[in-house]
Amino acid sequence: MTDTPPRVRLISTGSEITQGMYADSNAQRLSVILFDKGFRVVGHAAAPDDFDTILAAIEDAAPRADLVIMTGGLGPTEDDLNRDVISRWCNQPLVENREAEAMIRERFRKRGREMPPDNARQAFIPREATILLNHWGTAPGFLVPAAEHRPALLALPGPSSEWMPMLAESLGGPLHAAFPHRPRRSIYSMHLAMVPESTINGRIRDLFANQPGCELTILASRGHIRLRIAATGPRDDENQANTRRLRDLLATRLGEPFLFAEGPGDQTLAAALVALFRQHQKTLATAESCTGGWIAKELTDVAGSSQVIKSGWVTYSNDAKIRDLTVSPAILGAHGAVSEPVVRAMAEGARAKSGADYAVAVSGIAGPDGGSYDKPVGTVWFAVASPSGTFAARRLLGGDRESVRSFATIQALEFLRRALLNIDPQATIT
Amino acid sequence: MTDTPPRVRLISTGSEITQGMYADSNAQRLSVILFDKGFRVVGHAAAPDDFDTILAAIEDAAPRADLVIMTGGLGPTEDDLNRDVISRWCNQPLVENREAEAMIRERFRKRGREMPPDNARQAFIPREATILLNHWGTAPGFLVPAAEHRPALLALPGPSSEWMPMLAESLGGPLHAAFPHRPRRSIYSMHLAMVPESTINGRIRDLFANQPGCELTILASRGHIRLRIAATGPRDDENQANTRRLRDLLATRLGEPFLFAEGPGDQTLAAALVALFRQHQKTLATAESCTGGWIAKELTDVAGSSQVIKSGWVTYSNDAKIRDLTVSPAILGAHGAVSEPVVRAMAEGARAKSGADYAVAVSGIAGPDGGSYDKPVGTVWFAVASPSGTFAARRLLGGDRESVRSFATIQALEFLRRALLNIDPQATIT
Repeated sequence: MTDTPPRVRLISTGSEITQGMYADSNAQRLSVILFDKGFRVVGHAAAPDDFDTILAAIEDAAPRADLVIMTGGLGPTEDDLNRDVISRWCNQPLVENREAEAMIRERFRKRGREMPPDNARQAFIPREATILLNHWGTAPGFLVPAAEHRPALLALPGPSSEWMPMLAESLGGPLHAAFPHRPRRSIYSMHLAMVPESTINGRIRDLFANQPGCELTILASRGHIRLRIAATGPRDDENQANTRRLRDLLATRLGEPFLFAEGPGDQTLAAALVALFRQHQKTLATAESCTGGWIAKELTDVAGSSQVIKSGWVTYSNDAKIRDLTVSPAILGAHGAVSEPVVRAMAEGARAKSGADYAVAVSGIAGPDGGSYDKPVGTVWFAVASPSGTFAARRLLGGDRESVRSFATIQALEFLRRALLNIDPQATIT
Repeated sequence: MTDTPPRVRLISTGSEITQGMYADSNAQRLSVILFDKGFRVVGHAAAPDDFDTILAAIEDAAPRADLVIMTGGLGPTEDDLNRDVISRWCNQPLVENREAEAMIRERFRKRGREMPPDNARQAFIPREATILLNHWGTAPGFLVPAAEHRPALLALPGPSSEWMPMLAESLGGPLHAAFPHRPRRSIYSMHLAMVPESTINGRIRDLFANQPGCELTILASRGHIRLRIAATGPRDDENQANTRRLRDLLATRLGEPFLFAEGPGDQTLAAALVALFRQHQKTLATAESCTGGWIAKELTDVAGSSQVIKSGWVTYSNDAKIRDLTVSPAILGAHGAVSEPVVRAMAEGARAKSGADYAVAVSGIAGPDGGSYDKPVGTVWFAVASPSGTFAARRLLGGDRESVRSFATIQALEFLRRALLNIDPQATIT
């Protein structure tokens, strides 16, 4: 018998959200964490800094939720209304919490300042609420317990650097105590690069429904495909067995070599690649034309990448290709910069100059200008020079400049991965 | 007498949003466009693919809105429920729209395919609704007119590549006809880099309130500060005069040289810099250590940047600094890679080798490892080599690896801008 996940509705407050100045990233992050922790998010809402509108948002959310979580609106200024709105909604006066007051005062004292009078307001919470201390900022949060005809309400500050650790603490404390009977979840992701979502869907369509204890979801973003298995049940060992069974089915259908990473966490192709190169004790170099440094940027995003990356060149101009990568002017003249001979020469030049084991080169037409009948915008040549020779391939990538460049970046990383692991670079899932 | 902006509530549908797999970017983009077009967004909501939950979301939104806009849920699959839910809500049967049906059929015919039976469902809309044809995908949208006790409802498909042009068309057609009396708005933005938001707030605090016909907002994101003036009123010339007055006040308070861009649209520092270099007919080169290609990536994001960028180096290793940028091994040995002499040598080497007019170099400790007592994580040295000599400066940047790298990138671009325009690189707003 599985526990039913408590239903959660999220409310983000702030006129900057309803005016579109920021995306509501809190709602997304909270949804991921809450799903993982055995809750079920059944709605998001955002409301501007207006008392009646925020109150209406709570009243709308409350009837169909076991828990309402609000972020933002706990600051010291007059725009920060959530304390007052929640006090009205649950019909409890705001009462000063001594511990919270002392913490806020201490925070200012440590910086050599008196606590401004406005900040004193932050220590006031509804009378029956449980305080959630904030060690990462001034605004404490609080949990108003459920009552008849009223769900529980958790109020958190807006910055994720504050609410994330506070939520983690409350999941080990008052929030767990309020919802002790949640199902256990295990999340497992499998990652592929540059395979059309429709192709994957075609091969695994029948696995989306009727998986005992598991839910399968596919997510595609800029050439990165994630297959997510969410197992839900009362026992971790059963969840893991169910996950394993579906994981093996998927791996068989799609082919192990196409998976660049898998596991409970998330991972980028660049991170997987840096880990693989470290594991194989190999080094690499990049020679970029149309991607203009994006491949190197992705790789150096990864902590520890300095052990792997010997050198990178952004050779946007023909001069730079000739001077830095020893591409022959004759080849450039005969074939143009976006051509197989040039991209091969770039990769080989980068490998020779850097002394790296592997080098990847990219040359293409990102647009919006520069396309022709033979080489339309989106034409990109790739090459990987390796100890066993040089491979080159052309792709026609879709979309605008940003899209062509981002697809070219992930495609280049995937060609590098296949070269390192001796996987046929042209193999595709059909 | 100013018209009151119609109140809009947005509903995004899709379990992938409430499960946190994607951020609700439609809500943000719609909010920006609608604000600009004289509407006022008073709430966002997201609902999973569940009939009753979507219906409840409409019922919650309706009483406090003049217009409800829904995105998603118009596809051909069983998960796509918005047509049926809206039909129930407005109590109108779904009726086939012949023109839409023909368009969908034609779309498939052009690709050499028969229209699948499921797609025929997409041509059905509530009986009294006005169709919004979709020239960019299969799902048409529709506008259900307002009735007594019921606001108007606009249903749009989920992909922004489809709903954006459809919304633009409807703002020139049925949506404008339904809300003809909207105030006129003019948006003007002023952009600064690497100035603390609190410093700017301190200098212009009194300008946030009581601006006739204008609203001033400040937005900070990764070292990029936007001051947004939104003028609202019945007449464009008055809006422009009000904007101009506030713009001049802000420019005087903050200092013109600190503004890297201003105007009705949005702009990145990299785009402003590419435009400036093109205007001055100067070229540049980049030499990156801790930013690892991010500066070059930002610059090459800009269409037309090939006219400006001569070369870029990612010299993550000491070997690469010595070989590619002619940094002396003795200097590296004596001072370490993160030092003034090395970053100067990198900039001068990059300028000499590339033949560019200007070169920027960055060397720092992005973390999480590699920090020391003298050079903690976040220590970054910058240099700009130019026709008038070389400038170098150190900054201590806060946050995690991603944060240090992104701040270093925008700081490097700002130093380049100041060098090109002969603005004191160390001048700050106080």
